[in-house]
Amino acid sequence: MPQSIITLTTDFGLVDHFVGAVKGVILSLAPRARIVDISHEIEPYGILEAAFVLSQTCRYFPPKTVHMVVVDPGVGTSRRPILAEARGQYFIAPDNGVLSMIYALEKHKVRAITAERFFLQPVSSTFHGRDIFAPVAAHLSRGVAPSRFGRLIADYARGNFAQPASLDNRTWSGQILKIDHFGNLITNFPAADFPRIGSDPFEMLAGACRITCRAKSYAEGRPGEVLLIAGSSGYIEIAANQASAAKVTGCPVGAAVKLTFLRRTVPAPASGVR
Amino acid sequence: MPQSIITLTTDFGLVDHFVGAVKGVILSLAPRARIVDISHEIEPYGILEAAFVLSQTCRYFPPKTVHMVVVDPGVGTSRRPILAEARGQYFIAPDNGVLSMIYALEKHKVRAITAERFFLQPVSSTFHGRDIFAPVAAHLSRGVAPSRFGRLIADYARGNFAQPASLDNRTWSGQILKIDHFGNLITNFPAADFPRIGSDPFEMLAGACRITCRAKSYAEGRPGEVLLIAGSSGYIEIAANQASAAKVTGCPVGAAVKLTFLRRTVPAPASGVR
Amino acid sequence: MPQSIITLTTDFGLVDHFVGAVKGVILSLAPRARIVDISHEIEPYGILEAAFVLSQTCRYFPPKTVHMVVVDPGVGTSRRPILAEARGQYFIAPDNGVLSMIYALEKHKVRAITAERFFLQPVSSTFHGRDIFAPVAAHLSRGVAPSRFGRLIADYARGNFAQPASLDNRTWSGQILKIDHFGNLITNFPAADFPRIGSDPFEMLAGACRITCRAKSYAEGRPGEVLLIAGSSGYIEIAANQASAAKVTGCPVGAAVKLTFLRRTVPAPASGVR
Repeated sequence: MPQSIITLTTDFGLVDHFVGAVKGVILSLAPRARIVDISHEIEPYGILEAAFVLSQTCRYFPPKTVHMVVVDPGVGTSRRPILAEARGQYFIAPDNGVLSMIYALEKHKVRAITAERFFLQPVSSTFHGRDIFAPVAAHLSRGVAPSRFGRLIADYARGNFAQPASLDNRTWSGQILKIDHFGNLITNFPAADFPRIGSDPFEMLAGACRITCRAKSYAEGRPGEVLLIAGSSGYIEIAANQASAAKVTGCPVGAAVKLTFLRRTVPAPASGVR
Repeated sequence: MPQSIITLTTDFGLVDHFVGAVKGVILSLAPRARIVDISHEIEPYGILEAAFVLSQTCRYFPPKTVHMVVVDPGVGTSRRPILAEARGQYFIAPDNGVLSMIYALEKHKVRAITAERFFLQPVSSTFHGRDIFAPVAAHLSRGVAPSRFGRLIADYARGNFAQPASLDNRTWSGQILKIDHFGNLITNFPAADFPRIGSDPFEMLAGACRITCRAKSYAEGRPGEVLLIAGSSGYIEIAANQASAAKVTGCPVGAAVKLTFLRRTVPAPASGVR
Repeated sequence: MPQSIITLTTDFGLVDHFVGAVKGVILSLAPRARIVDISHEIEPYGILEAAFVLSQTCRYFPPKTVHMVVVDPGVGTSRRPILAEARGQYFIAPDNGVLSMIYALEKHKVRAITAERFFLQPVSSTFHGRDIFAPVAAHLSRGVAPSRFGRLIADYARGNFAQPASLDNRTWSGQILKIDHFGNLITNFPAADFPRIGSDPFEMLAGACRITCRAKSYAEGRPGEVLLIAGSSGYIEIAANQASAAKVTGCPVGAAVKLTFLRRTVPAPASGVR
C-alpha cells in the first residue's frame, strides 16, 4: 500500500526552524506519511498567492492526499482552523480565505477543527502550524475520520476573487494574480474565456507596456519582447522571451491591466468571464 | 517497520550540488533512510543559528532519529567530526559548538568520529558533509553501533551561550539570538524565567525602539506596532503586527537589548535566569 | 525492495507551483517513487550550471536512479525531449546541451522521447516539466523499458565546454564555470591535470586579484585572503577564507582567468589538459 501523502504549502521560509518542527510532529505521529513540500516561500501573509499555488498543484495529486496550508496572519486570534473535503482530498488551513479557489472550483464541505485532543499541548499562540495543523494532518493521514475533528460549518471565509470586469463589449479590466519565478505575470483572464486573443487584434495595457502580440511559447518573439501567452495555469500570462515581464512592465502583484479588442464590429465573446 | 529518519541542517544553500551529493551518498548506503530537510539556508558559518534551529526541531522527532548538522567553517582543519547521543537520538556534526544547545538542555555523551573505514574515500579537504558526515549518518541509521565510530571524549567544544545578565534587581541586558523569516527578533530571555513581563510595567530597549507592550499573538496591536511576545520557541520575541520587527528596530543578530521593570519596589523574580 | 529514486534539477525556483505540480504528477503515476530534490534554484535558463550540478551529484546515486533535469529556455519550440542512459542510470531532459557533461564523462546512448501516450494530455506549450518530463520519469521508474519512449538518436545537442587553453608551455587561459553559495569560484582547470599548482610558483589572474598561494582547506590563510584550492568537485577553485572570493575578485560566471607558472625552465606538465 502506498504511503499517505501530506503536502505542505506555507510562508514559513526555509531559513528557520518552522518547517523542520512541522515535519517532526507529522513523522512522530504518522511515521509512514510521505511529506511533499509544495512551497515554503509563499510571500509572508500571501493568502492569494497560497490559494493560487494550491489550486495549481492539488489537482495533480491522488485521492486521499492531505494538503496542509499555513499562511496565517491571524494566528492566535479567533480565526478557526478548518478541514475541507473536495476532490476526494483533504485541505487543512486557517479559515482566512486561503482555500477560496478550491471552493470556487470544486464541490466541497468544510468543518471547523475543534477537537483539541488531537492538538499538541500546550498550544502556543503563535505557531499553530506545529501545534494544530501538523498533528491534525498526521491523524487524518492515518485514517481518523474527518467528522471526528469538528462539525460542518457554512460561514467559512471566502476571498473576493478578482475577475476581469467587462467595461463594454470589447474592453475588460483585470489584474495581476501572481508573478512567477521567471517574471511572467499571471493575469486573472481565464484563457478559455478569451479565445479571441488568439484571432482578433487586441491590446493589453500593463504598467509601462502596450502588448499586441500573442505567442504559443515563451521562446517566440524577439529577446525581451513582451507577449501574451495562454499559460499552463489556464490563465493568460504576460511573458517576455528570456526576460522578466515583471521588470519590463514594472507591474507588481495586484496591478490593474486592461484588455481591448481593436475591432469594434465583431461580436462579443460567447461565454463571457466565468 | 518505519524507515529510519536522517535530518539535514546545513549552510549549503539550495543552489549548488552540495545537498544533492549528500543525499546521493546517504541513499546509496542506506536505501531505506528517510531524509528530512530541516534547513540548508543557515547563514554561511552561522554556528549559533544552526544550534538554535536544531534545538527547536529535534525535540519533535522520534527516538533514533539521526540529525546531521553541517555548518563547518573549519572543514579541512584539525577540528574533529563528532557523534553525540542525547534524547535517544543521534547528532553528527563538526566539533565547533554547533551542538551546544543540545548539551545545555539534555543528558548527552559525545564521541570523536575516527573510524575512517566508514568514510567515502578519498576524503576531500573541503566537503566533509559528503565524505564523512553523510556516510556516517547512513551507517548509523542502518544500525551500526555508535561505539564503532570512535571513543567517548570530554573535551568537545561548547559555545558561550549568551544569556541575559542581571545588572540590578530590575534590569537585565541580553541580546538577539535569531531573526526569523517574518522579521521577528528572538531574544535570549527565556519566557518562563520572566513571567513579570506579562504583569508588571516594563521597557525593553532594542535598537531604535522602546517597547512597553506585551501581546499574546502577532495580530495584536496596531499594524506595525512593536510588541513583546512569548514566542513558540520558548523565548521572548520582539514582534510587529504584520511587519518586520527587524526592520522597525534596525537590530541585527547579536544586537544588545535591555529589559527594565519600571516599578522599583516589586521583588525580583524568584527564579532568575537559568 | 527499495523504492526507485527520481531526482529533480530545475530552474523552477521554490516560490511557484511548478515543483509541486511535477511532484503530484510523479506520485500519481508512481506512488512508490522517492523524489529527491537536487536543486530548483538553478539560475533561470542556466544550462551550464545545471549540467555542472548534475555531473557533481549523479555519481553518488545508485544504479537505476532517474535524473530529471528541466532547464528549458526552448520549451514549446521544436527542441526534443530526450532520454539518455549512462552509468546504469537514466537522464530525462530537453535536448539543449544540459546533459553534455554526462556525455563527456560516460559511455551513453540517447533517445528522442516521442511516445506521446506517456504524456499528460493536453500537453501545454509552456510546462513540459509537468506534462512530458514528469510522467516519462514516473513510467520509467516503474520499469517501462527505455526503448518504448522513442528511438536512439545521434544528433543530440552537445555544449561547447570551456576548457583551459594552453597559450604556451607555462600559461593557460580558462574561465569560471560556477560560483557556489559560499562565493567560491570553480574554474575549468581540472585539479588532476595541474599538479604543478601544488609545487611550483604560479600566479592566477582573476578579475581584480593576482593569486599566488595554494591551500588545502578553506580555513587556511588570513581571513579574506584569496587562494587556490583543489576543490571537492575535482576542479581548481578560487576561495577566500571565511569570505566570498566572488566578491573579492569581482568575477562573474564565465569570467576569464589566466594561469602562469613562474619558472620558465621546468618541464611542462606531462598530462596536459584533458
